[in-house]
Amino acid sequence: MKPATNTAERSVANIRALLIDVINKAKSGHPGMALDAAPILYALYHDHLVADPGHPDYFNRDRFILSAGHTSALLYSVLHTAGYALSMDDLKSFRQLGSKTPGHPEVGVTPGVDATSGPLGQGIAQAVGVALAENMVRSSYPEGEKLCNHHTYCLCGDGCLMEGVAQEAISLAGRLRLNKLVLIYDANLATLDGPTSDSFDENVKLRFLACNWNVLEVEDGNDIKAVSKAIGKAKGSKDYPTLIIVHTKIGYGTVKEGDHSCHGAPLGKEDGDKAKSFYGIDAPEFTVEPEVYSDFSASFGKRGVEAYEAYEAGLKEYEQAHPEAYATFQASLKKDAAGLVPESLPLEGAKSTRVVSGEILKILHQSIPYLAGGSADVAGSTMTNIPGEHPYDEYHRTSRDLHFGIREFAMAAAVNGMNLHGGILPYCAAFLVFADYLKPALRMASLEKNPSLFIFTHDSIAVGEDGPTHQPIDQLPMLRSIPGLRVYRPADVKETLGAYKSALAYHSGPSALILSRQNLPQLEATSIEGVEQGIYQVYGDKKAKLAILATGSEVSLAIEAAKLMKTPVAVYSLPCLELIQDIDKAVTLPYEKRVSLEMGSTFGWGDYAKYHIGIDTFGASGKDKDVMAHFGFTPEAVARRLEAIL
Amino acid sequence: MKPATNTAERSVANIRALLIDVINKAKSGHPGMALDAAPILYALYHDHLVADPGHPDYFNRDRFILSAGHTSALLYSVLHTAGYALSMDDLKSFRQLGSKTPGHPEVGVTPGVDATSGPLGQGIAQAVGVALAENMVRSSYPEGEKLCNHHTYCLCGDGCLMEGVAQEAISLAGRLRLNKLVLIYDANLATLDGPTSDSFDENVKLRFLACNWNVLEVEDGNDIKAVSKAIGKAKGSKDYPTLIIVHTKIGYGTVKEGDHSCHGAPLGKEDGDKAKSFYGIDAPEFTVEPEVYSDFSASFGKRGVEAYEAYEAGLKEYEQAHPEAYATFQASLKKDAAGLVPESLPLEGAKSTRVVSGEILKILHQSIPYLAGGSADVAGSTMTNIPGEHPYDEYHRTSRDLHFGIREFAMAAAVNGMNLHGGILPYCAAFLVFADYLKPALRMASLEKNPSLFIFTHDSIAVGEDGPTHQPIDQLPMLRSIPGLRVYRPADVKETLGAYKSALAYHSGPSALILSRQNLPQLEATSIEGVEQGIYQVYGDKKAKLAILATGSEVSLAIEAAKLMKTPVAVYSLPCLELIQDIDKAVTLPYEKRVSLEMGSTFGWGDYAKYHIGIDTFGASGKDKDVMAHFGFTPEAVARRLEAIL
Repeated sequence: MKPATNTAERSVANIRALLIDVINKAKSGHPGMALDAAPILYALYHDHLVADPGHPDYFNRDRFILSAGHTSALLYSVLHTAGYALSMDDLKSFRQLGSKTPGHPEVGVTPGVDATSGPLGQGIAQAVGVALAENMVRSSYPEGEKLCNHHTYCLCGDGCLMEGVAQEAISLAGRLRLNKLVLIYDANLATLDGPTSDSFDENVKLRFLACNWNVLEVEDGNDIKAVSKAIGKAKGSKDYPTLIIVHTKIGYGTVKEGDHSCHGAPLGKEDGDKAKSFYGIDAPEFTVEPEVYSDFSASFGKRGVEAYEAYEAGLKEYEQAHPEAYATFQASLKKDAAGLVPESLPLEGAKSTRVVSGEILKILHQSIPYLAGGSADVAGSTMTNIPGEHPYDEYHRTSRDLHFGIREFAMAAAVNGMNLHGGILPYCAAFLVFADYLKPALRMASLEKNPSLFIFTHDSIAVGEDGPTHQPIDQLPMLRSIPGLRVYRPADVKETLGAYKSALAYHSGPSALILSRQNLPQLEATSIEGVEQGIYQVYGDKKAKLAILATGSEVSLAIEAAKLMKTPVAVYSLPCLELIQDIDKAVTLPYEKRVSLEMGSTFGWGDYAKYHIGIDTFGASGKDKDVMAHFGFTPEAVARRLEAIL
Repeated sequence: MKPATNTAERSVANIRALLIDVINKAKSGHPGMALDAAPILYALYHDHLVADPGHPDYFNRDRFILSAGHTSALLYSVLHTAGYALSMDDLKSFRQLGSKTPGHPEVGVTPGVDATSGPLGQGIAQAVGVALAENMVRSSYPEGEKLCNHHTYCLCGDGCLMEGVAQEAISLAGRLRLNKLVLIYDANLATLDGPTSDSFDENVKLRFLACNWNVLEVEDGNDIKAVSKAIGKAKGSKDYPTLIIVHTKIGYGTVKEGDHSCHGAPLGKEDGDKAKSFYGIDAPEFTVEPEVYSDFSASFGKRGVEAYEAYEAGLKEYEQAHPEAYATFQASLKKDAAGLVPESLPLEGAKSTRVVSGEILKILHQSIPYLAGGSADVAGSTMTNIPGEHPYDEYHRTSRDLHFGIREFAMAAAVNGMNLHGGILPYCAAFLVFADYLKPALRMASLEKNPSLFIFTHDSIAVGEDGPTHQPIDQLPMLRSIPGLRVYRPADVKETLGAYKSALAYHSGPSALILSRQNLPQLEATSIEGVEQGIYQVYGDKKAKLAILATGSEVSLAIEAAKLMKTPVAVYSLPCLELIQDIDKAVTLPYEKRVSLEMGSTFGWGDYAKYHIGIDTFGASGKDKDVMAHFGFTPEAVARRLEAIL
């Protein structure tokens, strides 16, 4: 790039110089792609993105997700320059404890950051969820485009495209024809360990065409006009989502240009100054020329304020024209659905908690038009079918039944994206053992304080014939160790109702409902309210010499075993460990007199009970009753174990 | 299909009838794809696959992995008919406890089953690892084709192709030009929840072409000759791996043909009989006509015996011609490398355990020619670079340096496949937080009793600036709860040596080495031998009133904190919880006097100690020392916590 000959080039040069300073001061960060992608972000924010820095969270803004989260210094530099409440001091405290400019973008921390990103591939998958929610909201109200009508942009590098979750999301977005999604691929030919071609030599264009995307290509990533033109064309797509491949050179303008070694190491003062000089910048550190601010305020800033004001005015008109729809829309933004969970269900006899969950969902779908969800091709088994609803697709935009396909990870990440967007109350479902496949998205939901709802059925060796590959053992400890995630394992109808009520009232983190495949009896002493306490007694009296701490399907088993015992035994149900305030208050018997009972790994139960009845090996293929008996989960076998402990 | 007009069709009809009986008797199983894929498996086994049922594990056999593991009834029926030690009684006990015919294929349980499969997508990724190991073994010995020269086949359905791990593996196999890999895709247009097109409408051919695969297509999956011809052509590929798309109809020949509802439900007697009648079979249940057995024995059986005998004879000649290479080859099959770990390293001063690990790997590479590994594009950070080695690719087939790309899950699954194949001692590496991305493959390694070696660095909030997305908190509990996985977290040079020694001696399950990014001091009382005990004392004497139980980087921290205390405190290092025999023998102080210290989730420590110093929230972006201080991980802060506990 020759010295800037126009305002746009001068602005890009300023942004590049700024991000070099940001990374140098922190002595930490990733300049490589940040430098080469600067013209892309400039073109996007300057010419296209509709958002108002003064109201960074307004609902109808365009969303931008930096899937290549390691290039955060570029994003922060652009946000600062574009007028967001991100000061030069914030940039100077890049990657420092407590700053608004953490190492990777974190939603809720920095104005203008629409998703937490960094774990590669997930930004793309969240963007797909955002675009999906945008379409669902727009499609489901009269004149819905007055409530919601915006684009979703995402920037990624090679790394994101190599991750499997990206392919799942790309395939899903193509299938669902999410035409207002624009993915920009910075093809800079280098990854951390070397030239991209060492590990990745796909024809990316062909791969996206195969997945029902439009593909545009920009040969020179420094040609700001060409990048902008491509984004403009992508915005107009009426059929498919669009990929824009932008060819760039990693570390553009530095002495390490084209060399992967500039990926993750600060340039330092000397190389930084050389690069700045190449860009035509010769100013003290952390200087942005006034013309750059005004360049942005006259374009991005002005456009955003106008859009915001027009949207707000339009909302008022909408409220007049469609008062009911408007009320629903406002309710959808609050996600306050806990009160709509019924107090009881007309179910009698033994029922699996997955069936109970299915009945609850059906009822909720009748009262919550913005409830939407689906499963990874196991709707019939997880009971997440919505009767009479066609799968959501390009011809059924008002459907609430999402067929995510056999793509657990992208499903979960998309649900996170839907929550980030708002206006939809999403859930998703899979077999518990396949929580493994989507664990990174569960963690992300928790990091984002995202109230994503995960329904996991087939929750133990009682799965039976499918065998150890399909029988969860290690999944409950995995889930329970994620900070902020609530893991509910209800024992019967009442506790399942309680779990839904509690989960839907929890707005600052995700919830997982752990449900049985097999039928479970309805218990006398269980209650909806018990769930919110995390632990409560369901059997036994003051004479008890031993306390069983059980969850889900093992609560009824514990009671049956207790009834076989001569020694009096108390049984506690623990529908949600995370909600327990003080176990020593809840359980009167001391630690040495407590036994945990759960058909899975005993790992993690040591804080609650001294003795454990569980399974610390993998399961086995066989009839469910045979497998349970084999592992000692019959009333008689449990009673024998309890006697031995006594 | 009209009634069979030739032997091949008659055999396929018999196999279809048999698998209907197998599933009906079990009242459990997946007939849909099993029925339509019968001609594919027939063509493969009858005409191409080289394997000897009498020696099902002989090294140079062709491998077959049923990635669509839910169609196990088909595989078992073929294995029975083809002459494996799988009796009609074994088939009759399909999916029953303790049988040789579990719900999904399990390696080590059934002769002729080359991998555990069922969790979708992983079969493909394991097949890529198998094909990679085949190529590496063949390429690295003089006349290596006499030791190893076979094909790897894999059968998948839509589900496998939707999973992200499959795309990672497909892209990797294409990049590495694994031309002896043949993937057969049964395109039967249905998944569990409905028509495939509800969730998946990619152009699969184009996607594979984009990923450097050859693609063949068979229009009629019942045309056995056409299927066989395609496999024959694929076998001959000299450049790329080959995908064969075979168009079929789910549940072929049943009343539910073409309907997704036959995917996972037994047909039952009536519909089963109708289908059998359609195939032209009218015989009692569990009948296979003698001609079918002889059809297989004259083809597959004869070919296999001859190949086995020729290979064994060739091996003897090889031993004469290349005694040293032969000895190395034999050693590679035993994977007995623990004795090659040095007793000490010439390292002085504070070193990160990732650097120590890197030094150990370099030494092992000098003495173990069959050691091979790499990382998910973080070799420079995980210290898994092999100096002077070019990335393994089509031009560098003898290289041992694997660039897996940013594909953690496929990397881990491929390593599992390499171990299943044998002849290579593989390892792989990633940041600990991204253990999340590959967890399903870790579980699979453990299920398969596969000694896969996983190196996880950047093991705590001490990662610093990269922030909470990159700082492990919940990963150690996740790993420790997987049955059979050994999790080593060494404290210094000696313990890192001990961890390698112990892990390499553990042949019946996987190991994870958890290593620090930051430097750690060398400790006086640590030892190589201590690792194998799981726990041992490293500081303090009999007067101790409190015991700190610490791992990895927190062992030195614990000692420093203990030195600040007036009350005498003992410190124990716990390099591997799974190896602890009896904690009450190892620690003389009672449970109430023990405190765990680990910079991560306290979940799971309740079995070892009453009090915990850990982190049960996510981390934060900042300088490593600032972040550690913020979370109370300084000697002073720990000492204060201990005083409070006292």
